[in-house]
Amino acid sequence: MVNLGLIGLGTVGKGLYSIVNNEYGGAYRFEKLCDVRGDLLSTVEKHNTGFTQSYNEILGANGKLDVIVELIDNALDSSQIAKQILRNGKKLVTANKKMIAENLSALISLQQQFGGKLCYEGAVCGCIPIIRVLEEFYQHVQINSLEMICNGTTNFILSQIFRQGLSYKEALAEATRLGFVESNPLLDLAGYDSKNKLVILLAHAFGIIEKPENIYNAGIQNLTDADIQVARGHNMKIKLIAKAVKHAGTIQAFVMPSYIKASHQLYGIENEYNAVVVDSENYGIQCYTGKGAGSIPTATVVASDIESITKGYRYKYHKLNDSTALDNDAHIRVYARIPKDSVLSGMPWVDIHHALSLEDADIYIGTIALKELLARPVDSDDKSFIALFDED
Amino acid sequence: MVNLGLIGLGTVGKGLYSIVNNEYGGAYRFEKLCDVRGDLLSTVEKHNTGFTQSYNEILGANGKLDVIVELIDNALDSSQIAKQILRNGKKLVTANKKMIAENLSALISLQQQFGGKLCYEGAVCGCIPIIRVLEEFYQHVQINSLEMICNGTTNFILSQIFRQGLSYKEALAEATRLGFVESNPLLDLAGYDSKNKLVILLAHAFGIIEKPENIYNAGIQNLTDADIQVARGHNMKIKLIAKAVKHAGTIQAFVMPSYIKASHQLYGIENEYNAVVVDSENYGIQCYTGKGAGSIPTATVVASDIESITKGYRYKYHKLNDSTALDNDAHIRVYARIPKDSVLSGMPWVDIHHALSLEDADIYIGTIALKELLARPVDSDDKSFIALFDED
Repeated sequence: MVNLGLIGLGTVGKGLYSIVNNEYGGAYRFEKLCDVRGDLLSTVEKHNTGFTQSYNEILGANGKLDVIVELIDNALDSSQIAKQILRNGKKLVTANKKMIAENLSALISLQQQFGGKLCYEGAVCGCIPIIRVLEEFYQHVQINSLEMICNGTTNFILSQIFRQGLSYKEALAEATRLGFVESNPLLDLAGYDSKNKLVILLAHAFGIIEKPENIYNAGIQNLTDADIQVARGHNMKIKLIAKAVKHAGTIQAFVMPSYIKASHQLYGIENEYNAVVVDSENYGIQCYTGKGAGSIPTATVVASDIESITKGYRYKYHKLNDSTALDNDAHIRVYARIPKDSVLSGMPWVDIHHALSLEDADIYIGTIALKELLARPVDSDDKSFIALFDED
Repeated sequence: MVNLGLIGLGTVGKGLYSIVNNEYGGAYRFEKLCDVRGDLLSTVEKHNTGFTQSYNEILGANGKLDVIVELIDNALDSSQIAKQILRNGKKLVTANKKMIAENLSALISLQQQFGGKLCYEGAVCGCIPIIRVLEEFYQHVQINSLEMICNGTTNFILSQIFRQGLSYKEALAEATRLGFVESNPLLDLAGYDSKNKLVILLAHAFGIIEKPENIYNAGIQNLTDADIQVARGHNMKIKLIAKAVKHAGTIQAFVMPSYIKASHQLYGIENEYNAVVVDSENYGIQCYTGKGAGSIPTATVVASDIESITKGYRYKYHKLNDSTALDNDAHIRVYARIPKDSVLSGMPWVDIHHALSLEDADIYIGTIALKELLARPVDSDDKSFIALFDED
């Protein structure tokens, strides 16, 4: 019998509770449940599950718990919980991408120092087992590039625009109505969520541990009909893509809306689906597609992490010694619509392929250094739209 | 240091030899190499690798070998080798789908009885890690259906037909010219190879161990322009698909050319690419795409099997006690073009949706029981073409 502690009874937590109790044949039991909200369970349930509103009680009960599962939203609490559990040399499963992305270096060190274990398959692309695949099947294989759609909210909005003909505003309203938009919408819309997932995969695929703030992200929050028309005119779609490409031994990594053609592997990935395309020396191109969110899909992959970590499974981060580094000096080809009065006007283009002056904005297609974009983040108060426009 | 024995120095065997020696950092060495062809290596190489032309020498050297890798074509020799190694309680990695499909029950029993281990990720869909994913991530998840393109030769031919506009004969000639067609072409063309792969996945996905002869396969060997025109007229493509669908607790499984629309997940899988679509209760639809053949992709996944089996990994066949069975009484909807004088004329249709009498053949779209098809195999001397025509 494996004793579990579970912190966080939100959508995924509740799904996990039900899956483990109903589908795992009694091999696992929840010894202690914790949620800051005290009204989620009946009195009987609370009693039967050792319910507590304080996660310190779970941390204190460490000795009785074989695996602790943390499924809360708050990245700060999540990081304190994770570090404490790993300092105790215990086993932790989480799906908190923001917490992992921001603390990856420390989380790896703590595992090495105290012998604890940490698995987080549910943190990237929902139920697609991409971390495990990278760990087990790409261990000795040089990866050339990684491209993914890993945010369901933005992909739903873009599907509404390009398949249903909605405007960005209408599509955003529809996503909001369906509960797909978080209390801070920019986390999804501006690409921060996608970037956190990219940061995690950079570690497993290339051995790069990088702070999220050193990686450029642009999003779809300022998308207008003009930008959409450019895609339609070229028979393209716009997708929010997280990308890492190896070039001359360094890695260019970023999250950007991307104009892609029908021949692109990610062109047909719609709505709540996520996909990862891995191009490598030995395997060539592989593509993994599946649901990127949802209570049951994510909870099921968390349950499989629990099972693996119980049996001693751990990530090896095989590529950590590869001494590959990020290269923000690299040039990429972008589409940029920049209002006349924008802080982004006067960007240091390396090469302008196409320029068009509208009444209220300038449109460019050209080449620019990633570091120049990184120095000029598109914030919510700006109206600029920057996207990858790579016709190859 | 892990000592390896390798039987078979064909395309995949040579790739493996090079990958392990060059990319595995000296942790593995080939203690003994074997191939019936004596002229593959130089005298020095032969001496350095304990080369032998008799696989009995490898079996006799069992005690010195930690893992034996068998990569020969001959399924009969392969099964004798596999059974002997497992009887000795040793570790075996192979990619011989025909051997595994025909001997799966015995291979599982021998592992249980003598404690040996057997891995064969390279046997199904080349370098797509589908067996491992089913074992590790679908252990507690009910699978509703499995659909795959798992034969590169037929997929190349069909891509030539539907993307380049070639006739079946022209496409077959092109595939032959490029060396994609085996000495017995019907193994690929008539769906036997795909069926062997389906038989293997049936065990991991549904716990069904079934002899290949109890599963219906039709192929593309009799494909004509008339059949191709039907697809074009419906904006469809024909793909050779291996399929298993759960219905009311039983499984319908078969390999058939299939008329599919652009909305089908497998529509865009072309040439040497394979893909598996898994539809399950908890995860919904997942799709895994990658190269289905080739020396380096397959050898690389064989190498990862060697690494895993060395560390004690074994398949659990979690679903074996699920008591799911095949149902050949089930009805499916097919397109059939049957020459007037064919042994297939007068098929017991349950329902005929569409019938057309041509000069030399009758064309039907209708419903028929799988067992009726199984009783009437389309052999090479017949000219009939049977395909799944499921417009849903």
